[in-house]
Formats: sequence, structure tokens, C-alpha cells
Amino acid sequence: VPGVPVGSHFPLRRDAAEAGVHKPYMQGISGSRVGGSDSIVVSGGYVDDEDHGDVIIYTGHGGNDSATRRQIADQDIAASGNAGLIISQLEGLPVRVIRGANGDSSYAPTTGFRYDGLYRVADHWSKIGQDGFRIIQYRLEKLPDGDEPIASPVPGGPAPTRPVTVQRRIRSSAVIDRVKRAHRHRCQICHDVLEVEGGLYAEGAHIRGLGRPHEGPDVPSNVLCLCPNDHVRFDYGAIHLNNDLLIIDTKSGNHVGDLRTVGSHLIDLIHVTYHLNLWAS
Amino acid sequence: VPGVPVGSHFPLRRDAAEAGVHKPYMQGISGSRVGGSDSIVVSGGYVDDEDHGDVIIYTGHGGNDSATRRQIADQDIAASGNAGLIISQLEGLPVRVIRGANGDSSYAPTTGFRYDGLYRVADHWSKIGQDGFRIIQYRLEKLPDGDEPIASPVPGGPAPTRPVTVQRRIRSSAVIDRVKRAHRHRCQICHDVLEVEGGLYAEGAHIRGLGRPHEGPDVPSNVLCLCPNDHVRFDYGAIHLNNDLLIIDTKSGNHVGDLRTVGSHLIDLIHVTYHLNLWAS
Repeated sequence: VPGVPVGSHFPLRRDAAEAGVHKPYMQGISGSRVGGSDSIVVSGGYVDDEDHGDVIIYTGHGGNDSATRRQIADQDIAASGNAGLIISQLEGLPVRVIRGANGDSSYAPTTGFRYDGLYRVADHWSKIGQDGFRIIQYRLEKLPDGDEPIASPVPGGPAPTRPVTVQRRIRSSAVIDRVKRAHRHRCQICHDVLEVEGGLYAEGAHIRGLGRPHEGPDVPSNVLCLCPNDHVRFDYGAIHLNNDLLIIDTKSGNHVGDLRTVGSHLIDLIHVTYHLNLWAS
Repeated sequence: VPGVPVGSHFPLRRDAAEAGVHKPYMQGISGSRVGGSDSIVVSGGYVDDEDHGDVIIYTGHGGNDSATRRQIADQDIAASGNAGLIISQLEGLPVRVIRGANGDSSYAPTTGFRYDGLYRVADHWSKIGQDGFRIIQYRLEKLPDGDEPIASPVPGGPAPTRPVTVQRRIRSSAVIDRVKRAHRHRCQICHDVLEVEGGLYAEGAHIRGLGRPHEGPDVPSNVLCLCPNDHVRFDYGAIHLNNDLLIIDTKSGNHVGDLRTVGSHLIDLIHVTYHLNLWAS
């Protein structure tokens, strides 16, 4: 928002709304599946939230009793703000983060509300929260200040030198390398090989994600060898595996294929069950 | 290489070889398509090289007259070091860069050879070089010092917190967003839509790459809306477009499909021709 630098303080939610930093007066998530979500407020409203500063585990909205702040019903992934944050993840759109004094982390301001800059939505999933109801959660990662997306340049002009929003990173490591070799780069889901000039292309997909909050181990038994399309489908929960390593279409619940396995690469069912619980309701 | 910090100096190539920093005594590229290339020497041997410090445009080996340093024949993408650097790109393996005093850039050491840290292979292509012969080129990007890949942890242990090698980044921007909307996220090559829970996933692919050395513009007429698999195929030159926007399999030269187009997104044939010239020989 022009004229509102990172660190700006707002005594009341209304002040943040009027400044255009977070437009809704009540809701924690601004935006919808049309255009994605542009801002959120982190203010201790959900017991399953975790604020680690540069990384925030943020719970979607809905099913929450405002008096007790506890969940009393399942959340709906199709609810406007929840769906909007998924669009922000899919499209790589940055989200403004506003912290409120009610937040119970050391990053909360002492009074009122503070604009804390742009974050990217790096991941989302659902799980049964502390109160026994299904919640939607998001991993938000801080973008460097001053890294706001730039206006598209004049047609035909040179490309901007400042980097634009990072949407998706595919990493490589010795562990992933080992898994890809075991499968000779063949996708374990579609069973095809993506051949390019000079070699074969595959990606390593962690079944249980690395880092907060999943804290999955970086070991071969937690990695699948996938083509990029099936990597996206698996990470976004469009497909998951059951405990017989059958591939299940999450939406329909149909069995759509069998995971290809080889004797030299064993998969730990603990991680498969973890991923299953994130998606299958 | 343990015990060889960034900045280490070697009076002769033999010294770098004996330290294990760059094992071949003569060749500029160490390694092969088995395991990829682990190191290169940048020392002014090829007129088409460009050294910008953190970004190096590096020419593959072969077809070079060592006396005049000019190209006298086409380079072969299947030659051991050339193929090895493509494997390093495909697998996200870092490459040690050693600069020699014969390099004609301001980054060259005044004498002997200097180990300058790890780079990633971000891109490769082929083109007709200054001497009129086809050359293979690579874009190398400096990795942060201290970012060397870490040994795989003990099985079952926690994931390492230090980041591993970045292999491929998919960016988002207002321009890419516009192109994806114009196609409603449908891949222009396979004509399919990648549906995940909560939305559709597509990637924007620049036809003529941004940045050095391609310097393509970040405008809709230089962007395609692709699924991740076809994005990989297009970027690695497994497929390209001809001037009638037919999709051509580079290896066989066969027409394998038609680019899907819509009236609200016009493609500039100048960029199509640029990409074609990188791949079609």
C-alpha cells in the first residue's frame, strides 16, 4: 500500500482498514477466491496458530467461537478467505501481514496493530486441530522488505532487474538424488519419464514436508520421485496415497492408480499416513 | 573440497588438479554425463564467454583451435563435459568455478588460478557463435558461500535446517498472471488443465528468457501459459515452436501438436524465432 511502510502502527482495526492495509473490519482474512487474499491479521484468535516471526503457521477462518476462541466446528476450505489464501499460493501472490496486540507470541506489538510486511503462502493443508475439529492451515514465509512486486514494465521494454515473487522452489539434495536414481527418473504416480535433450527430468517430493510444522525427515523413505505435474498434484493434495500405496483422487475418493515402487527404495508408511491425514477427511 | 576455502589460489592448473578442485589437467570442464560436471575453469578460452561475476555465460567445450582460441567446428552437446553440465542443471548439482589469469574479465585473478566458490547451472542453450559455428552455452549463477550441499543426515534424523541446492524456481508476476488468466490456466501445449484442491495450477514460461544473455522482455507476448511438465520440456528445448506456432519435437523434428492460442493473448513471433534458433539446428 503506497504511503504505508513496514512497521506502521494502527491503534485500532478501523485505522488499518481506513489506511487500506487490511480492509475488512472484522474478518482476519481479506480477499476471496477471485483475486486471492491480499492481507491477514495475526492476533491470537486461533489456538492452532504458531508465530515464529519469519514463518507463521496460520489457521484459516470459520468454526471458531469468538468468546472462548476455541473451535466448535470444522472449517470449510471453500470459505471465502480460506479459498483466497489458496489462490494466493497457486498464483504466487504476496500477502500483507498485520499483527495485533492480542497475539500471544513475542512478535506481537504491545498495543494496537502493526503492518509487518509481505509474506508468501508457501504451503497449505488441513488437519484435526487441538479442539478436535478439522482446520485449514497455511505456512507463510516472510518476503524481504522492499521486495514488493513491481508494476509490469512498458510493453517491449527491458525486463525488470528486481526479482518478482517466488512461487515455487524445487530443491535438490543427495537424498533426492538417490531416490531419483532408484527410479531412473520414472514418475512413481504416472509411471512416465520426462525426457529432455541431454537427460531425464524428475523431482523429489517429500511426503511429509520438511520444516515447520510438519518437521518431516530428509530421508529416502520420505521422498517420492515424481514428474512436475504429479508433484504439484501431490503437494496440493489433489491426490494422496492410502496405506496400501494406492493413488486416491482426493475429490472423488476414487482409486486412480498404483504407486510404482522398486525394491531399492522403501517408503515409510508413517509418512504416507501423515500426508493422508492432511487431505483425506 | 574440504580444506580448500573460496578464494584459494593455485599458481598452476596442476596445483588445482592435485588439490582436487579441478581434476583434469587440460579440459575446462570436469565430469561427464555420469554424475554430472563438478567443476569448470573460466580462463578466456572461448570468445563467446561472458563473465559478469555472479553470473557467467560459459561456452561448452570442443571445436576450438587452441592456438587462435577461435571456433573452427560445431560443438557437440553429447561431448562428455557438455553433457555433464546439462546433468548438473537437471539434477541441481553445484559446480565449482575456478578462474584463470587468462580470462579477459575484471574478475580474473592477476596470476594463476583462483577457486571462486559454487555456482548453479541455471540454463543452457545452443546458438551460432561469433565464429559462425554452433556452440553450447550455460548460464551459471553464484550460490552463496557457505551454501555447499550438506551431507545427508542420519536416517530418521531431523531435516537439516541449512537450505540445499535450489534447482528450479518458478516465478510469478503481474504479466504472467495476465497470461494465465487469458488461458484460464489451460496449458497451451498439451491443452489440459491441472486441477488441484482449491483452484487451477499453471506456470508462465518466458519464450525468450529474462536476463543475461537472452534479455527477453517481461511482456505477455513473450510468455506462454504451460503446465509444469511442458514448461520443463520447453525450457530444456525438448520441444520448440516453429513460425506457424506448430509444436515441434526437437529430437525427431516431428510436428507433435498445435499451440493453443486465444485472441486476448497475442504472441510475438520475434521471440518464437529466438527460442527456435536456440534449439533447432
